[in-house]
Amino acid sequence: MRFSTDIANLVQRRVTGQSLEAPFYTSKEVLDLDLEVIFGQHWIFVGVEPQIPESGDCFTVDIGKASVLLLRGDDMQIRAFHNVCRHRGAKLVTDPSATIGNIVCRYHGWTYNEDGELILAEHMGSGFKKNCHGLKAVHIRSISGLIFICLAETPPADIEQVATTVEPYLAPHDLVNCKVAHITDIIEEGNWKLTMENNRECYHCESNHPQLTVPLTEFGFGFSPDELDERRAEDVKAYEKSLREAHEAWEGCGLPSSEQEHLRNVTGFRAMRLPLKWEGESHTVDTKAACKKLLGNLTDPKLGGLSLWTQPNSWHHFMGDHIVCFSVLPVSADRTLLRTIWLVNKDAIEGEDYQLDNLTHVWTLTNQQDAELVRLTQLGCDQPGYETGPYSEFTEPHVEAFCDWYVSRLRNHLTSDKIEMAAE
Amino acid sequence: MRFSTDIANLVQRRVTGQSLEAPFYTSKEVLDLDLEVIFGQHWIFVGVEPQIPESGDCFTVDIGKASVLLLRGDDMQIRAFHNVCRHRGAKLVTDPSATIGNIVCRYHGWTYNEDGELILAEHMGSGFKKNCHGLKAVHIRSISGLIFICLAETPPADIEQVATTVEPYLAPHDLVNCKVAHITDIIEEGNWKLTMENNRECYHCESNHPQLTVPLTEFGFGFSPDELDERRAEDVKAYEKSLREAHEAWEGCGLPSSEQEHLRNVTGFRAMRLPLKWEGESHTVDTKAACKKLLGNLTDPKLGGLSLWTQPNSWHHFMGDHIVCFSVLPVSADRTLLRTIWLVNKDAIEGEDYQLDNLTHVWTLTNQQDAELVRLTQLGCDQPGYETGPYSEFTEPHVEAFCDWYVSRLRNHLTSDKIEMAAE
Amino acid sequence: MRFSTDIANLVQRRVTGQSLEAPFYTSKEVLDLDLEVIFGQHWIFVGVEPQIPESGDCFTVDIGKASVLLLRGDDMQIRAFHNVCRHRGAKLVTDPSATIGNIVCRYHGWTYNEDGELILAEHMGSGFKKNCHGLKAVHIRSISGLIFICLAETPPADIEQVATTVEPYLAPHDLVNCKVAHITDIIEEGNWKLTMENNRECYHCESNHPQLTVPLTEFGFGFSPDELDERRAEDVKAYEKSLREAHEAWEGCGLPSSEQEHLRNVTGFRAMRLPLKWEGESHTVDTKAACKKLLGNLTDPKLGGLSLWTQPNSWHHFMGDHIVCFSVLPVSADRTLLRTIWLVNKDAIEGEDYQLDNLTHVWTLTNQQDAELVRLTQLGCDQPGYETGPYSEFTEPHVEAFCDWYVSRLRNHLTSDKIEMAAE
Repeated sequence: MRFSTDIANLVQRRVTGQSLEAPFYTSKEVLDLDLEVIFGQHWIFVGVEPQIPESGDCFTVDIGKASVLLLRGDDMQIRAFHNVCRHRGAKLVTDPSATIGNIVCRYHGWTYNEDGELILAEHMGSGFKKNCHGLKAVHIRSISGLIFICLAETPPADIEQVATTVEPYLAPHDLVNCKVAHITDIIEEGNWKLTMENNRECYHCESNHPQLTVPLTEFGFGFSPDELDERRAEDVKAYEKSLREAHEAWEGCGLPSSEQEHLRNVTGFRAMRLPLKWEGESHTVDTKAACKKLLGNLTDPKLGGLSLWTQPNSWHHFMGDHIVCFSVLPVSADRTLLRTIWLVNKDAIEGEDYQLDNLTHVWTLTNQQDAELVRLTQLGCDQPGYETGPYSEFTEPHVEAFCDWYVSRLRNHLTSDKIEMAAE
Repeated sequence: MRFSTDIANLVQRRVTGQSLEAPFYTSKEVLDLDLEVIFGQHWIFVGVEPQIPESGDCFTVDIGKASVLLLRGDDMQIRAFHNVCRHRGAKLVTDPSATIGNIVCRYHGWTYNEDGELILAEHMGSGFKKNCHGLKAVHIRSISGLIFICLAETPPADIEQVATTVEPYLAPHDLVNCKVAHITDIIEEGNWKLTMENNRECYHCESNHPQLTVPLTEFGFGFSPDELDERRAEDVKAYEKSLREAHEAWEGCGLPSSEQEHLRNVTGFRAMRLPLKWEGESHTVDTKAACKKLLGNLTDPKLGGLSLWTQPNSWHHFMGDHIVCFSVLPVSADRTLLRTIWLVNKDAIEGEDYQLDNLTHVWTLTNQQDAELVRLTQLGCDQPGYETGPYSEFTEPHVEAFCDWYVSRLRNHLTSDKIEMAAE
Repeated sequence: MRFSTDIANLVQRRVTGQSLEAPFYTSKEVLDLDLEVIFGQHWIFVGVEPQIPESGDCFTVDIGKASVLLLRGDDMQIRAFHNVCRHRGAKLVTDPSATIGNIVCRYHGWTYNEDGELILAEHMGSGFKKNCHGLKAVHIRSISGLIFICLAETPPADIEQVATTVEPYLAPHDLVNCKVAHITDIIEEGNWKLTMENNRECYHCESNHPQLTVPLTEFGFGFSPDELDERRAEDVKAYEKSLREAHEAWEGCGLPSSEQEHLRNVTGFRAMRLPLKWEGESHTVDTKAACKKLLGNLTDPKLGGLSLWTQPNSWHHFMGDHIVCFSVLPVSADRTLLRTIWLVNKDAIEGEDYQLDNLTHVWTLTNQQDAELVRLTQLGCDQPGYETGPYSEFTEPHVEAFCDWYVSRLRNHLTSDKIEMAAE
């Protein structure tokens, strides 16, 4: 793919600390670039192992125009394939999730096994080579049950660093022994980067998320020290003391809790544990655990929340009683799919150990509230009156980290020798 | 913005007296040019003062991708701003009309006063300059209560000539002391220029507007003298005599009535008063006044109708008892918003002094009929079998005036030294 | 129109025996090329004479952006015109079918007679030349009542060869003395070429068309001899013997039956007669004739089915009791209109001689089944994981013939001296 000099100029001149120029949020050409360079070359979070617990279970996910089939085999391994027949190109599995034996094309019956090998194709004659017509594989990596795929031929190697670093944080929550309690898909009316930027700060939380903020501490997401009066300066000191105590307690019971921030890596990520206030246990309306059966071997629900972010497209909240995972995928320049997955202990029984409404209430509302903010921003940044504005260094440093990562990845791509620049 | 040589060629070769070539009605690139050169550089009629009678009242209007906020301040002045936050670019006021105090962004609470000054922005640190982050102003000019805005940095100066010329015509109808009785928005399925061309002639009226034409005189909108037989030649003479008498009567009671035609000015306009036949008073089914309380200090409802046209996007009918204003705004190359506003004396009481159905009936139907004609023409001119056809010099001179004005404005823009022509 | 070097390269490098590269099915630019070169330069099947049996009957058909009006005159001849007024370009006849006198434009009343001559245009003045403003004609050719039109100035001359060859085959079915029993329009969610490719093979029939295949013989649409075991080799011999007997019987009663294959002609076509098995008479659920009154002078319903294909956009099944005609027209790169027309003897009475449900059942279902296959293929070939796959030489030779014809027509166009290649 060739990119115009306009796009290359936009990428090169991006100003640190400022929101991106409008075409990054509105242009079809930039979206195509994002799909090629960001979603086509990086590890993308697409789901969790408990979505396909049994052999033969599969689900499909669309990344741009690519439909990818994820299938658990008889050996319990998960494999990923391009979901398209090698004969006339029909899409193979059309349901979002299914349980299948072999992979059979409905058009002319070509049949592939769980390794993607073509095992049946009638009327092709004696010279036809089945072994040249197997399904095309897609790279896949599970980190503690979080499934990442990469469409590139050679995926970024530093996924191993992510795994090594975050697995000790995730292990106590034992995601692979969870079950999926609920999945929602919503289409946000904005560019995928606006969805991500919205996630990377909580400056907007106080006035927009009345449910989510109940157990959140006012100072947990940054603040301007210049604007503190004496009383609030005292509050900050008290908060910092309680935070130190929380970390000591977590580490004492074997929960790693120090912040790991590597957002500018090729496979950028961040992990951290934050306390919930007022004896809070979970992201619920009453801040109490939504599920009686805790995760893994955990016994105390008052663990605060472990947050994991990965670039370019995910965030996750691991609590003592449940996990919520979020996957962001572009639909068009101004439409984005947000998939939210709630997980609980696989032995928990709905209606007995947890109520689904209570489990999903806070993030269902929070997603709706964020979707509206994303929509407003998309409506604004598409206007001729829009110009880039400043990020707060106190409350929006991770928005900057996201944009900086994003623009760096594009720059890296545009300056690599593989790129032909198109004359206009 | 750069334009292709194709577009420049289309503009240069336009043939006087003929409908425009198809791309002027169908091409996305031409629409972008229209939005930049016509709607971005000229005075655009967007509404009337009585839409926002009180301080704090505001409404928004979309011109292409620009959302403009019009707000009446505590000093009763109306100001216009780009409706977008200077922080992350969220759209500020999302309702079409509202009553507000300060302008508060819902995303992070940035707050602007009625002058557009940023007065609150938390967590931005001590180095942040609020005074560099105020809302961007848009030029605004009210002529007897008709609100025009201009998105250009330097708007056309000849709006003053429009004001000077037409205010004496409009003054007796006292629009600023009217109230809005009704507003309708319809989306016509055609290019905005087809909507305007349709308005600029009544050649189509007789066979398409059975309600509107009841009080209209057959000869009021042009005719071919070659096609008159002897009897109709007599009718013309009688019509011309009655017209002279009407003008004398109007001037006698202080109503300026001579035709003012300046359609080829940068801010082109035309004002004229036409009689209604058969004791007609107003554009109603029975041709009688729709509202008992007349406008301003008028005492006689039999004043005919004062028509005001402005280039590129409005027409207005001022009668003794009510006013109807029309604003045309492009939505896409083949979709156009027609906003119609009915005004009556602000002291008139609905159900007592006027019936809303009766007031709005004729133009509601006429708009629908015109929308269908615009739709048919859009369907036709997008066909390979379409070619430009001749305008009647007798019944369509103002269609030609519109097209000539339009093409002249494009030519002026394309030949200015600011334009870079794109190689293809 | 200019085409990019990308498209020209795609056309030049097409590999024989393989499905087309993705842009042929997905690109807007290729669709525009198809509309210009294929649908703009070839004979396109658009309907049948019995759709407009009386003088004044007309119907309209859209080929790309062209709306074409087909009108039967007082002389019972059918003429075709571009359906657009020569004045301001309004579309003239807006209903899909109608009965009219003269052709009157609703906008300003311009009136054309059945020859397309402008006979009325008011207010145009004495210098106006009506004879320069007639409707633009479109070439039309009826072959045994099948209506083909061509938008080119000079249509392919070999339509005469089609007529000469196929009229003896069609004559016994007497289409011009049929009536239209039913018409359906469905929009298939795929490129028009996928609709055509799907029609050009029956490899997919066994597993997808349970109703259609009831009277079809397993070996009638090709098979791989390598894959026959001894028992099936015997079946093939028996089939071939019965086929020879059927041909003798057909020829004996005056029905030409030898295969005519000229799919690579400019006006490519194929005609052949195939037997139906098990005493089958027609494409119905019970394989019996759907209509008691047979076509023309036919007396035996057991005639098998005569298939006629024409490039680029039609196929037809002529049986003893009814005819089904199919017309394929692109709507967009990924949407295609399939029009299906069922015809029976014009003296047959619905409810008495035939039941409409029974007549239309098999092809209504078959169309739905094919539409789903076309949709799956469109979904697949738009994926980055798609690559061209091999056609079976045994079961898909006519798919290859279609693609080869199509690519040859594009090559012929691109190498003609009329083409300017656009620099990118």
